[in-house]
Amino acid sequence: MAGRPREFDVVIARDAAMQLFWSQGYEATSLSELLAAMNLSKSSFYQTFESKQVLFEQCLVRYSSLLTGAMREGLAGAPNPVAFIRVALTDIAKETRDPMGRRGCLMMNTAAEFAQSDPGIARCVKAGMKATQEVFVEAVMAAQADGSIQSKESPQALADYLVTTVIGLKTQVKAGASSKQIKHIAELSVAGLEAMDTV
Amino acid sequence: MAGRPREFDVVIARDAAMQLFWSQGYEATSLSELLAAMNLSKSSFYQTFESKQVLFEQCLVRYSSLLTGAMREGLAGAPNPVAFIRVALTDIAKETRDPMGRRGCLMMNTAAEFAQSDPGIARCVKAGMKATQEVFVEAVMAAQADGSIQSKESPQALADYLVTTVIGLKTQVKAGASSKQIKHIAELSVAGLEAMDTV
Repeated sequence: MAGRPREFDVVIARDAAMQLFWSQGYEATSLSELLAAMNLSKSSFYQTFESKQVLFEQCLVRYSSLLTGAMREGLAGAPNPVAFIRVALTDIAKETRDPMGRRGCLMMNTAAEFAQSDPGIARCVKAGMKATQEVFVEAVMAAQADGSIQSKESPQALADYLVTTVIGLKTQVKAGASSKQIKHIAELSVAGLEAMDTV
Repeated sequence: MAGRPREFDVVIARDAAMQLFWSQGYEATSLSELLAAMNLSKSSFYQTFESKQVLFEQCLVRYSSLLTGAMREGLAGAPNPVAFIRVALTDIAKETRDPMGRRGCLMMNTAAEFAQSDPGIARCVKAGMKATQEVFVEAVMAAQADGSIQSKESPQALADYLVTTVIGLKTQVKAGASSKQIKHIAELSVAGLEAMDTV
């Protein structure tokens, strides 16, 4: 690929990089692996993406947009908001059988790898978490409106609880938990949510 | 330090390595950084620890033993088992003010970095998770016995729920959550646990 690649090729190449970062993490992914996966020369790479870090930040934004897009579709298609929440949590059990390996969540892996050590990356992670949380906020508000969640806690706090559970479950998958274990923990978390009525 | 270091020095050196791995992760920690932190020559390093990976596995074992030791003390000293669980969860809020930075949990960071890609490291992570879970199993059994937890779920499943919450909270800290948010999520999780009565 000579010169500046077309927009379409940029998207494809970036998604290939996203997959690689997701599987291996930022630090462990070398430039030569990136060039091979993205099918780019070194000069096109730097011309198009500026640096490994800029590319990585773009991958985080893209990942978050794919993830929340899928969640919004799930919420829109679910018979009711609690059914959406239950599926969002129990479906994490499927990740134990991911043919790409137990990769967890790119956003969480990045939080684990960088924490707050890089301000740009920390901002991307925080924005990604916020976007995920917002879908849960909508689901919780709908469930509080239809009475299936009795708790008077703020939708934001209950959504934080759900995001925390999702993160925990995805990390449990990476740590070797079985599909059955994940499903069971997910069900307990939903049961906890439904049973809460404290302020 | 010439020749084979004494046992005492080995422990001190290994703990310095553990701190470094905890702050930076395995991949991002170079041999030269390790030698500097451990105050060892390259030859003593290889003579004593064999390889970076062997050292890392020893650090995981050590970390887990420190962590569960502290948890057992907490459980033994708590006024009741639910108080222990509440403190174990809400105390994670303090990690937002860790002077060493938001390092999360070495075990979870390692799960995020490696997942199941290295069998030896995966075994260490799994054993560490199991050790943590066992302390929660004891706490849950005691709480079921004194009636403060009504759920008839197995102590193992409820302990899995608690471990998942701890992992989620620690990753939220790394992702930039505030102390107040962490405390609130922790309280919600305990409220959920206390409210659950499904089978």
